[in-house]
Amino acid sequence: MTQEMIDKAGYEAALQAARAGAAEGGVPIGSSLAGAEGVIAAGHNRRVQQGDPTAHAEIDALRAAGRRSSYRDLTLYTTLAPCALCSGAIVLFKIPRVVLGEDRTFGGEIAWLRERGVQVEVLQDERAQALMERFISEHPEIWNEDIAEEPAGS
Amino acid sequence: MTQEMIDKAGYEAALQAARAGAAEGGVPIGSSLAGAEGVIAAGHNRRVQQGDPTAHAEIDALRAAGRRSSYRDLTLYTTLAPCALCSGAIVLFKIPRVVLGEDRTFGGEIAWLRERGVQVEVLQDERAQALMERFISEHPEIWNEDIAEEPAGS
Repeated sequence: MTQEMIDKAGYEAALQAARAGAAEGGVPIGSSLAGAEGVIAAGHNRRVQQGDPTAHAEIDALRAAGRRSSYRDLTLYTTLAPCALCSGAIVLFKIPRVVLGEDRTFGGEIAWLRERGVQVEVLQDERAQALMERFISEHPEIWNEDIAEEPAGS
Repeated sequence: MTQEMIDKAGYEAALQAARAGAAEGGVPIGSSLAGAEGVIAAGHNRRVQQGDPTAHAEIDALRAAGRRSSYRDLTLYTTLAPCALCSGAIVLFKIPRVVLGEDRTFGGEIAWLRERGVQVEVLQDERAQALMERFISEHPEIWNEDIAEEPAGS
């Protein structure tokens, strides 16, 4: 597979996972890991489904991939700019490259990832953005909880 | 409870969790969350036990605490300096204060936590250090895997 084919398969797996999360009533963010062997794992945010605040999409995908001694040949795909938790996982596991859907609904830690030497590519995918815009509009309190934003005046 | 009493209860809960992890044959790192109401959750590294690379002690404790809208009245206790993954969780969830056992066997991301405004206190607890020294000496390959360090020449 060319890198372009891997990227297409990896990102579409992340988007499919985000849609699965949306269908379950959860935060619609998906993620996957892929390399020369194709997509090796995918996951999506399960805060609502499992009551687990650490079950962000990227963490769920890393869990699904299981124990590994190295991530240096993999790219992490995600539909949204990674937050500090997921960026921390990327830095810890030395994942060299991240391809993400959009950074318009949430800016995440892209600058910090780049500071730490991670290659970050932003697709600005309107499908991913539309999923997030709808969820934030319908469930602002769950989204604020997911990124630990407290409503003004609280 | 005074803050000193909370700190003692919180840190001892983290140390007890680390020892439980050691008894299970896992990476001996423990963590807890505590506030004015006392210890609200504890956890330990379960990479070996659950085959989950994201199950660091702090993540396990945050999972055990469940969904919360705020962490601003809590301190996170951990027996070892938090890695990038766990520091990312602390930054994301705006946990204002971290009390940790030791930073001699692993330096973690203390400088970055402080840059992000987190108050970090280091106890240099020899009990925690001895647990880690023994594990690193007996299972260097599992420890390297846990922090994504590849052996030289690999």
